[in-house]
Amino acid sequence: MKELKEYIRSIPDFPEKGIIFRDVTSVLQDADALKLSIDELAKRLEGVDFDVIAGAESRGFIFGAPLAYVMHKPFVPIRKKGKLPCETVEKTYDLEYGTATIEMHKDAVKKGEKVVLLDDLIATGGTMKAAAELVEELGGEVVKMLFLIELSDLNGREVLKDYDVDSVVQFEGK
Amino acid sequence: MKELKEYIRSIPDFPEKGIIFRDVTSVLQDADALKLSIDELAKRLEGVDFDVIAGAESRGFIFGAPLAYVMHKPFVPIRKKGKLPCETVEKTYDLEYGTATIEMHKDAVKKGEKVVLLDDLIATGGTMKAAAELVEELGGEVVKMLFLIELSDLNGREVLKDYDVDSVVQFEGK
Repeated sequence: MKELKEYIRSIPDFPEKGIIFRDVTSVLQDADALKLSIDELAKRLEGVDFDVIAGAESRGFIFGAPLAYVMHKPFVPIRKKGKLPCETVEKTYDLEYGTATIEMHKDAVKKGEKVVLLDDLIATGGTMKAAAELVEELGGEVVKMLFLIELSDLNGREVLKDYDVDSVVQFEGK
Repeated sequence: MKELKEYIRSIPDFPEKGIIFRDVTSVLQDADALKLSIDELAKRLEGVDFDVIAGAESRGFIFGAPLAYVMHKPFVPIRKKGKLPCETVEKTYDLEYGTATIEMHKDAVKKGEKVVLLDDLIATGGTMKAAAELVEELGGEVVKMLFLIELSDLNGREVLKDYDVDSVVQFEGK
């Protein structure tokens, strides 16, 4: 069987010149690779004591929801501003150009709950840092940050140095 | 055990006055309800001959990806315009105010493949109709449209009358 890394398609110059985009749709489009990706993520949670998995819109949903299903845990969607219908906490963070705002329902994480944050990819770590701050604002504890793909030259681990960061597949370069 | 319908939270006057929003985050936030929702969707695919599950951004991802995982099928994300890195087909459709455009990778569905389309909720059916047209443009066949929640007074089944439509939970009213 192929390794997971071989299923990830690399697209040069997307979304802009000089960037190599690591595309997970090629993982999803293969039933074996999809299964492998979820099982590899699940392996990294073996022995971890946690209550909830939270994932960021939208690709965090694609891997976070199956992982929550197989581990029999709740899944908390972290969404872009304006999508969640009940009371929320929100956090605005910097992007390369401009800012973004993410939200979480106030009742999504209870005080003292142990939260695993999941996303498909770690680049600069900005979204995940904001997500962790939302969890902490609600009194939750981030026990692990888990990624399918890590772009190891983009310094995300430095931004997230206060957290336990783990990833399944690593790529060098931008 | 509670029935799935009891886990769905109803929010009056969201996103605007007079609308009752059916919120699935309360399903996701309960591990038993999340499992039940995926297992009920899977039941409706028993005996259905299909190759691929496709789901629309973003809530279609939350239910479509676990369903693909448990049924050991590929998952195809249908995304808002500008998010997919490779060659795409796109479809613009009408919303209550304005229009929306969705895209699918050209290599996501092969000619002759049988596709199950999945979303969390059917209201007017507009998104799903556009999604079906994308599948057909690529030569695929939509063998089923599956929804967790159906708002049965909004006439979505009429818009989708050429397709086999199924849902797990039904609500009357708007």
